Amino acid sequence: MTLTDDGTSAISMERSGGVALWRQIAERLKGDIRAGVWGQGAKLPAEAELAQRFGVNRHTIRRAVSELANEGLVSSRQGRGTFVESAPISYPIGSRTRFSEIISHQAREPGGRLIASFRETAAPWLTDKLQLPAGATVHRIETLHVADSIPVSVSTAWFPAARFPDLVLHYAETGSVTKALAAHGVTDYSRARTDISARIAEPDEARLLQIPADAPVLVTAVLNVDSDGKPIQVARTRFAAERVQLTVES
Amino acid sequence: MTLTDDGTSAISMERSGGVALWRQIAERLKGDIRAGVWGQGAKLPAEAELAQRFGVNRHTIRRAVSELANEGLVSSRQGRGTFVESAPISYPIGSRTRFSEIISHQAREPGGRLIASFRETAAPWLTDKLQLPAGATVHRIETLHVADSIPVSVSTAWFPAARFPDLVLHYAETGSVTKALAAHGVTDYSRARTDISARIAEPDEARLLQIPADAPVLVTAVLNVDSDGKPIQVARTRFAAERVQLTVES
Repeated sequence: MTLTDDGTSAISMERSGGVALWRQIAERLKGDIRAGVWGQGAKLPAEAELAQRFGVNRHTIRRAVSELANEGLVSSRQGRGTFVESAPISYPIGSRTRFSEIISHQAREPGGRLIASFRETAAPWLTDKLQLPAGATVHRIETLHVADSIPVSVSTAWFPAARFPDLVLHYAETGSVTKALAAHGVTDYSRARTDISARIAEPDEARLLQIPADAPVLVTAVLNVDSDGKPIQVARTRFAAERVQLTVES
Repeated sequence: MTLTDDGTSAISMERSGGVALWRQIAERLKGDIRAGVWGQGAKLPAEAELAQRFGVNRHTIRRAVSELANEGLVSSRQGRGTFVESAPISYPIGSRTRFSEIISHQAREPGGRLIASFRETAAPWLTDKLQLPAGATVHRIETLHVADSIPVSVSTAWFPAARFPDLVLHYAETGSVTKALAAHGVTDYSRARTDISARIAEPDEARLLQIPADAPVLVTAVLNVDSDGKPIQVARTRFAAERVQLTVES
């Protein structure tokens, strides 16, 4: 692919080499992204502009851009255009995952804050998961996690209040669930199960995560158990999908 | 909570029992959903209507509905309202996951169709993942999977063409990647790694999955390896987020 020499900005495409036009354009755009022509978070030129530049119709551009999206290099946002994806934070779903360790290992600065805490009667779905008697009391803590000062996730976690009476106090002091549990004698715990789903952010979530109102969140529903396999924590974490990918290694 | 006896439809809420109004309303709505007052996929009454019914302001209703969303019972769709979630299909991310087995185990009828297949030169990111020489040829197959005739996922998979020359032929005949690989002597394979992300569906994906244009998809990027650990398949699968949850058991 070379620039035409007739003074226009149209780029000549090989129309007989056996490689579909949209594939050639996709490769060209990928090369531009890798070369930094458009940086992370940058908006790609409009379809019409790209169509003119490559001398093809908009359908061909759409197919090329769709290919880039499928490879995770760009994402289209309804009514706003197509943007180059940032390198997402990788969040491993393993049996021993701690937010601060994960973020630190990716050369980013972890942080977090307690948004709110409640002492409340557990709903039936929750007593079921935590294996508590009906009507048991739980602590509920709502937290925001950031990496390099950028919001990554908001999380709601529930803990049996009878077993962990001072959990909120310890969490507020240390900012660490691991430390708050250790203060109650739970020195080790692990993740028994994670359910992963996605949906559009609720307004409160979008505000806290600083993402557009119609942006998607990845949701993990986690059950943590102590070394005897007894449930100690249920958590639902909503990650800003544009900033995080979850990874599972078998 | 009882119906008032003054002939109106307002529901009296306990305002001094120590349980926040929004929590009482959330529990009431949950009870209604469990009782089938609103079935799967049904639209909840508008905020204003619920506010009138419970005799509270809209902010309180919003907090209650936000709680249901957080528990995965309902989801809000931009500009359309709030809907009761369907029981999602659970898709385990383990080392040995086969679509047809997963769907069958959930008492649903699996199905699929080949949308398209291509023989093409692998892009650098792909030769890297498949450990192939630069410029190697791959088969690319695009498939749609359904459960009980409802679209669940669209998938793009790439295989080394030199090792699996007749893969597309076998796949077209049997509808099974497992059988197409077995025909080339790969009788066992496993999932080495899965990256999970979420984004808004591309137009083509939304059309194939029969979801709204601005609905989210869950995306899994999978690397499958043979029993010697050699990469044999890269696949990117986009699941209709409203119909599927992924699960990881530790």
